[in-house]
Amino acid sequence: MAEFEVTPWDVSGHVDYDKLVKEFGTDYITDKQLKEIEAITGDLHIYLRRKLFYSQRDLDAVLKAHKSGKGFFLYTGRGPSGDMHIGHLMPFIFTKWLQEKFKVNLYIQITDDEKFAFKQNLSLEDTRKMAREDIANILALGFSPKNTFIMQDSVYTQTYPKALEWSKYINFSTTKAVFGFENATNIASIFYPAVQCVPITFEEKQCLIPSAIDQDPYWRIARDVSHKIGKGYPKTAAIHSKFIPPLSGLEGKMSSSIEGSTIKLNDTPKEVKNKINKYALTGGQNTVEEQRKKGGNPEGCVVFEYLKMLMEEDDKLLEERYKNCKGGKVLCGECKQYLIEKLNAFLSEHQKARAKITDKDINKFLLK
Amino acid sequence: MAEFEVTPWDVSGHVDYDKLVKEFGTDYITDKQLKEIEAITGDLHIYLRRKLFYSQRDLDAVLKAHKSGKGFFLYTGRGPSGDMHIGHLMPFIFTKWLQEKFKVNLYIQITDDEKFAFKQNLSLEDTRKMAREDIANILALGFSPKNTFIMQDSVYTQTYPKALEWSKYINFSTTKAVFGFENATNIASIFYPAVQCVPITFEEKQCLIPSAIDQDPYWRIARDVSHKIGKGYPKTAAIHSKFIPPLSGLEGKMSSSIEGSTIKLNDTPKEVKNKINKYALTGGQNTVEEQRKKGGNPEGCVVFEYLKMLMEEDDKLLEERYKNCKGGKVLCGECKQYLIEKLNAFLSEHQKARAKITDKDINKFLLK
Repeated sequence: MAEFEVTPWDVSGHVDYDKLVKEFGTDYITDKQLKEIEAITGDLHIYLRRKLFYSQRDLDAVLKAHKSGKGFFLYTGRGPSGDMHIGHLMPFIFTKWLQEKFKVNLYIQITDDEKFAFKQNLSLEDTRKMAREDIANILALGFSPKNTFIMQDSVYTQTYPKALEWSKYINFSTTKAVFGFENATNIASIFYPAVQCVPITFEEKQCLIPSAIDQDPYWRIARDVSHKIGKGYPKTAAIHSKFIPPLSGLEGKMSSSIEGSTIKLNDTPKEVKNKINKYALTGGQNTVEEQRKKGGNPEGCVVFEYLKMLMEEDDKLLEERYKNCKGGKVLCGECKQYLIEKLNAFLSEHQKARAKITDKDINKFLLK
Repeated sequence: MAEFEVTPWDVSGHVDYDKLVKEFGTDYITDKQLKEIEAITGDLHIYLRRKLFYSQRDLDAVLKAHKSGKGFFLYTGRGPSGDMHIGHLMPFIFTKWLQEKFKVNLYIQITDDEKFAFKQNLSLEDTRKMAREDIANILALGFSPKNTFIMQDSVYTQTYPKALEWSKYINFSTTKAVFGFENATNIASIFYPAVQCVPITFEEKQCLIPSAIDQDPYWRIARDVSHKIGKGYPKTAAIHSKFIPPLSGLEGKMSSSIEGSTIKLNDTPKEVKNKINKYALTGGQNTVEEQRKKGGNPEGCVVFEYLKMLMEEDDKLLEERYKNCKGGKVLCGECKQYLIEKLNAFLSEHQKARAKITDKDINKFLLK
């Protein structure tokens, strides 16, 4: 029996990220690569330092393309649910950093078609509405329409002809093997993997896709097929992240569908406070006395994990907190309070920026 | 073992049209329906009189919609090959007659995506080029852009979102059962049936599709699904034709891929003459003497079949020719000569009209 499962639609159990690298056939991001990146960018993003992004395909080809002057472009995406949480924002924060540091174009795919195809009870009108809300949340991070382009699948007029090119070279067997499609799967879902490949050929350059590792099956298919598209394209490169765990524990991933497992982008400060205090799993002992005596377990603590992965950019402060927890000098309530403040500061800024995004802004980014 | 096969991609053997009606679950066009049509149209098209169009689904609903003032619209299509023959033109000639008599809108689908998906060696650029040539040939029949609209699948910008709506309710099992798709079928082909359904919901009215009966499997699927699309649409009606046989015999259908089996729309008078004289199967006897004595067999004669189905509009002249053949009064060479003249007169007019169709004309008809 599998201890954990990672598919584009489901992440459950205690994910063994080393096993995923082996199973998916990806490579780790090496220290050598991190140094190369740092030499170009001047610093390393927290997600790279803390190994939230930890796996890759053909990252060397990307760095080579950059150094040679040929350049590359970025592609990432989002399946709209209209209810984004901080885990959803993470790849966009990272991609924006890459975009600024490497000065490259970015294509963001919004897969309103995917959500319509896979969710029985959603209409296309529903997922299109969710798409607009998600785009607003993404744009709140401060992307520029000069080098950022959004492909909303059901709106972009070239989705079908471009997906056609990919779909000719992908057969049902492949989608069965890679995604577990069955005879009862609808043909919208069966066609969809071709749509997710489309942005890879938006430029005649090396493509780099930052995404959570559950999306890698798509890139595997794309890498098998891309030489057959048009006059042939290079295999896309990818850089894969781990998942942000739910508040309630270190298994699976944060999911809007599980009550109390997520910090949503539109949560109020009070909601954040209540959720952290009520649901966040810590590695603390049963009593204050015991904690002071034995120390806590930051490795088993969601609060520490969130600080490490998302919110505590200062390496020294993080190290200190780790030691203080282990040594029984800091109590869980204090760490929770610190995380609540960090999250609310982040959300307050985000919500202000989100409120300023208009329909007109969104339209500036949409590919026609 | 099947004596004949009829699928959207292959027609072979001596087609038993009565068996098809049973197998597909369609209905015959009744004399009562023909009388109703004639009462509205004033006359009956040769294809109806001679039962080239012989089967239907929900034709009564169409006539009812017409009489009630609600009206209906027409939809027919073509998979571009760039090498149209007279058999390909037949449904368009008939549809144009219906359009003029009933004064209704017509949507013509040009399935450049289908040909790309199903033909290994064709690029999308190839099938798009073929599409333009085929559209020119169709427009040469004299359609008006006021009530005729062309959906070129890979060019129309709404193909994907509209096909998505259908594709959610069609699963792989259905396409397997209806079209014989296999695990090795590419996902472009698997998705395609949803695209062929799209024009059925172009208007919130009853749709009537004139087509050869091999396309009926698509309409069967569409009729099962249409109530789920948007707020729900009526089941499409259909009117089905038999196939124009190849020159070489009464089995299968005229096909551009079989040398000498077709009269192409761009054939010269000399080519037509040579093809008829060289390839056309007749029901004649071995010698002139025998023919004079025993008479010929018009039922087994492709030349007579072409005159009956396509070229001899005069019922009396056809009847006379039939009797004269049976009675040995007319020889095969004379019938061939008569058919050559008829075909060349038709093609000469068609080619003149085709030569006048410009790119600008085509663009007037294309749905954006």
